[in-house]
Amino acid sequence: MHLNIAVLEGDGIGPEVVAQSIKCLRSVEETFGHSFTFKKGLIGASAIKKTGNPLPKETLDLCKKADATLFGALGLPEYDDNPKAKVWPEQGLLRLRKELGLFANIRPVKVFPSLVKQSPLPKASVQNTDLVIFRELSGGIYYGDKSISEDQSSATDTCTYTEAEISRITHLAFKSARSRKKKVTLVDKANVLETSRLWRRVVRSISESYPDVVLECLFIDNAAVQMILNPSQFDVILTDNMFGDILSDQGSVIAGSIGLLPSASVGLEHAMFEPIHGSYPDAKGKNIANPVASILSMAMLLQHFKMNEESDAVVAAVLKSFAKKIVTPDILGSSKYGTNYVGDFIADNIM
Amino acid sequence: MHLNIAVLEGDGIGPEVVAQSIKCLRSVEETFGHSFTFKKGLIGASAIKKTGNPLPKETLDLCKKADATLFGALGLPEYDDNPKAKVWPEQGLLRLRKELGLFANIRPVKVFPSLVKQSPLPKASVQNTDLVIFRELSGGIYYGDKSISEDQSSATDTCTYTEAEISRITHLAFKSARSRKKKVTLVDKANVLETSRLWRRVVRSISESYPDVVLECLFIDNAAVQMILNPSQFDVILTDNMFGDILSDQGSVIAGSIGLLPSASVGLEHAMFEPIHGSYPDAKGKNIANPVASILSMAMLLQHFKMNEESDAVVAAVLKSFAKKIVTPDILGSSKYGTNYVGDFIADNIM
Ligand SMILES: CC(C)[C@H](C(=O)O)[C@@H](O)C(=O)O
Ligand SMILES: CC(C)[C@H](C(=O)O)[C@@H](O)C(=O)O
Repeated sequence: MHLNIAVLEGDGIGPEVVAQSIKCLRSVEETFGHSFTFKKGLIGASAIKKTGNPLPKETLDLCKKADATLFGALGLPEYDDNPKAKVWPEQGLLRLRKELGLFANIRPVKVFPSLVKQSPLPKASVQNTDLVIFRELSGGIYYGDKSISEDQSSATDTCTYTEAEISRITHLAFKSARSRKKKVTLVDKANVLETSRLWRRVVRSISESYPDVVLECLFIDNAAVQMILNPSQFDVILTDNMFGDILSDQGSVIAGSIGLLPSASVGLEHAMFEPIHGSYPDAKGKNIANPVASILSMAMLLQHFKMNEESDAVVAAVLKSFAKKIVTPDILGSSKYGTNYVGDFIADNIM
Repeated sequence: MHLNIAVLEGDGIGPEVVAQSIKCLRSVEETFGHSFTFKKGLIGASAIKKTGNPLPKETLDLCKKADATLFGALGLPEYDDNPKAKVWPEQGLLRLRKELGLFANIRPVKVFPSLVKQSPLPKASVQNTDLVIFRELSGGIYYGDKSISEDQSSATDTCTYTEAEISRITHLAFKSARSRKKKVTLVDKANVLETSRLWRRVVRSISESYPDVVLECLFIDNAAVQMILNPSQFDVILTDNMFGDILSDQGSVIAGSIGLLPSASVGLEHAMFEPIHGSYPDAKGKNIANPVASILSMAMLLQHFKMNEESDAVVAAVLKSFAKKIVTPDILGSSKYGTNYVGDFIADNIM
């Protein structure tokens, strides 16, 4: 198979981790006889610095033409700490998700048996965790009207959801549950929010077409507790953009390191694959960033194109790195292996 | 001292836990020579069932006239599961907070040494936890305009904050930090939300008047991770209504049970004291609900009226119950002590 892959390294550790995924894709090419081409585009702080724009038109065009996009990470504290900035890195990612129509962000949280003891949570509750979060990615308060009063003394964000937006991701979530443990948990705040009440109504009505799947509803405050106390109760979690952002980062605690969790962002025409971690500017260039989240995101890319054998081979190589303790310091504090070495090991073991 | 206390038991386990706090207040009266009068008001599902209104006018008047309000818990699943309901229990609480001008919800999260091993989190990270969350309580997306389109296919919630709303709670938070570990952590999502950027600007500018207090900013997704991985890094957490709801429930995981965490909701004229737990309808009438969150909320009430010795005596009695393992089953699964027995023990030990 031939794939054109757009590569957006972004900021901080983005370039370092994406480099490992590309190494692994080269190895997949060789082992399985595929051909991948990579074209890089600017995004985030690096794009602002070079072009003034966190998502230059060339980058958007590149992603639109590509078969899929591999994304690193973005963000730099100098922008966070400047509340008067007119442009900041995250705008690039948010606009890209919207322009590509990536409405579902799929975030699996699985505890690898060899890493169970890495989790700070009790073994009993984490070892059976195998859940996937379906986070709505192109609507909600992320994209609603925003405003600030002229005298700068009052600000507003708007959260809007339509039945159509809720419906398309709900079907994805229920279809996924069908091939899994047959349970969907809708997370919302229906005792406060009108949008949550719309979610409940739409999801409940769609659930009737999936009689083999159980639907459960949880308030976000309770869900944030349950994710820690008893994550193995979940199968598919379905939620909006903001709640999904919070819950899925929390999921990283279960797995033992945020450097392990991949995600796929999909729409009708495009797909992008991105680790859930951020750009960790403090770690940049130190060769300590964990490349596994990026590599597993790349494995989701392969799966997206039905290269299941290839995807399994990548995951197997990652598991081998865990078994041999060829891991970065976030996993074993005392580890002497760097980003590059771990990437090489995994690439060499794709077979 | 004489205090008129409005008592809103609410739903589920509300009446059972509040009854224990009243027992303890009777004991405080006797031991310290005060006089408290209690007047009950309806709220939540029980109020809807009797009057059709989750916050009857009499209840609101009662709370306005009282020196303080002691609140139990509210909510019933039959309302959550009916997205077309026009009235639901939580509306009563939300309206009450607004009408009483309770703009700051103060939620301390402390790990009691005798309960450290109750926490599912690693001892090292929890044992030094002593943080307090200042959650803005009368603004944000909880109270902004809400609407649903005529054909019911689209819904909107609005989140608005003004400088004045942010400013008053920020001063409370910084004052509290001054008498504590001198650090305030603002939790927001300034890389996405306009309201968060206003929070950052206002809080940063106010922080200049508190040069002895360090200000730190964290995104909510990261904060949700840090609350679990390393809660002892926090001193005072300052955040908006929605993020505060999620973070403080998460805090209960640190403490080992949501049945332990109290809160005070304060404004310029009124104050209300409420456990952070919900109404747990499944536990209703079983004599298993933990009364400690309600009793510690009542201790915050005493402190609010500068009855520090009295408040300390209540906390000491609670600690004695922990030391003697006179606790409900949420703390020790095998515990044979019920809500009433624990309440009696604590009341008897206020001295
Ligand atoms: C960088 C930020 C805008 C982004 C988000 O909130 O969606 C990130 O936290 C994520 O989860 O991908
Ligand atoms: C009952 C509900 C409306 C309430 C809230 O979200 O504020 C509760 O969760 C709380 O934290 O006091």
